[in-house]
Amino acid sequence: MDQVSIVEVAPRDGLQHEPVLVSPLDRIALIERLAEAGLAAIEAGSFVSPKVMPQMAGTGEVLHAFAGRPQLRLPVLIATEKGLDQALAAGARDIVVAAAASDSYSRRSLNGSIAEAIERLRPLIGRAAAAGMRVRASISCALGCPYEGSIAVSQVVDLAEALHGLGAHEILLADTIGVGTPGRAKALVRAVATIVPIGRLAVHFHDTYGQGLANIYAALEEGIRTVDAAVGGLGCCTFAKGAAGNVATEDLVYMLHGLGMKTGINLEQLVEVAAWISADLNRPLSSHVGRALRAA
Amino acid sequence: MDQVSIVEVAPRDGLQHEPVLVSPLDRIALIERLAEAGLAAIEAGSFVSPKVMPQMAGTGEVLHAFAGRPQLRLPVLIATEKGLDQALAAGARDIVVAAAASDSYSRRSLNGSIAEAIERLRPLIGRAAAAGMRVRASISCALGCPYEGSIAVSQVVDLAEALHGLGAHEILLADTIGVGTPGRAKALVRAVATIVPIGRLAVHFHDTYGQGLANIYAALEEGIRTVDAAVGGLGCCTFAKGAAGNVATEDLVYMLHGLGMKTGINLEQLVEVAAWISADLNRPLSSHVGRALRAA
Repeated sequence: MDQVSIVEVAPRDGLQHEPVLVSPLDRIALIERLAEAGLAAIEAGSFVSPKVMPQMAGTGEVLHAFAGRPQLRLPVLIATEKGLDQALAAGARDIVVAAAASDSYSRRSLNGSIAEAIERLRPLIGRAAAAGMRVRASISCALGCPYEGSIAVSQVVDLAEALHGLGAHEILLADTIGVGTPGRAKALVRAVATIVPIGRLAVHFHDTYGQGLANIYAALEEGIRTVDAAVGGLGCCTFAKGAAGNVATEDLVYMLHGLGMKTGINLEQLVEVAAWISADLNRPLSSHVGRALRAA
Repeated sequence: MDQVSIVEVAPRDGLQHEPVLVSPLDRIALIERLAEAGLAAIEAGSFVSPKVMPQMAGTGEVLHAFAGRPQLRLPVLIATEKGLDQALAAGARDIVVAAAASDSYSRRSLNGSIAEAIERLRPLIGRAAAAGMRVRASISCALGCPYEGSIAVSQVVDLAEALHGLGAHEILLADTIGVGTPGRAKALVRAVATIVPIGRLAVHFHDTYGQGLANIYAALEEGIRTVDAAVGGLGCCTFAKGAAGNVATEDLVYMLHGLGMKTGINLEQLVEVAAWISADLNRPLSSHVGRALRAA
């Protein structure tokens, strides 16, 4: 039976896009509940300027709360040397760094061209890897860009090759604006897998146009076994206010279990976490599975 | 380039499960707008007792409004000889008849065992086909039953074979309670296609657990080219109040166009129809594509 690793991104990617600020203590509680439901990899926060990302202030405090739990993977997002210093000081063992397959997006969101981003990540990834950290490198706009529209597969392949070459342990293909459909998702995974071993690839899809699970299913068919999702579908879409954001972890778990794949996750418990954090954020429980199981 | 036929079911399967009654005149307007958006097959109503299905009263009036449009396929649901008489009198050219792959469901919802349902459908399908009607036979609970749980694939295959043998032109595999996941959907389509030519098979999935598009994608991979959907995701789930119902046609069209498949449908126009009918029913626009395109 196949095992799929879900990387739960609600505490970082999810909360970062929610209007309500959640305290470090509540974020610790969220991560604790997610771990109890069976999640083994949970994006825990970021060491990015709190001016840029006030939602993630106190990430050090969050990491310290789990210092005695080495079996729990808690990747944190960093963008600079200073962020890496902070992550190291807080005892982080997993980091996420971001690049983008679109030059326009890279310049607007990552302060430099794709080539400049790679050069900035070179020493960061090197230092992190030398310190024994596991590095996850995310490729934004892998299936489309809000400024440039469609993105050539070759651009993603080239960037994946560069990041892999810098020593990133995992390459994350992220459909930042959720425009991908399963045929293109499949073709992208297949192309990148010619360069980066499939076991080192992960996918991150958004449900902006409802395509998340179909894209994940197509990626699974290509051999992908690491998938991002956010409990309760937390996080909205920056580029289409009011639209859906991340794929809900509970919808993903339902599909994976239906496919006979193991996740180690207790679905009922996960739905309770989704209901709790959604209420805390004053947003309706938006996952299909959450609504169905609580309505039944 | 592949062509996919979408059967739009909002005016019947969708409205039938909505609490708000919609007048025949408004249903005519809905069908008209759907046809303008490019839909060529639209479930138009039913000739079932208005006591059982008050939402569908006046289906004859609806059909008469489109009497001069033979290119538009407007299937109507019937369950009895009397219903067939009414459909013939109203000039219907397409009918839908229902059976279920679960004996418990068949007894509770279709007034008899699976075997009894087949015997009741035998003369109905025979008469309809002899009158030149196109008969679509739906198999409810094809991937699960609210009373019995999982349903053996062989039960669906046997029923499909029987209905095909009675002369039904199309067999519709319906996941009535939306519990299916893509692996099982694929296996079911593959098994039934060993008996009924794939060109005569269609699928109907619900989004109760968010699996609709993933299931459709899996079915498309098996060669399915006729798919049901409801504009705006109209219709709710009888077995889990508050849960999602039909797959939204606009989410499906987005996926199909992304896959390079032709539908003949104008997506922007379809989203306007979804917004209009959702407002009319006093429900939020629930499709992902609808919310994304109107929020952008």
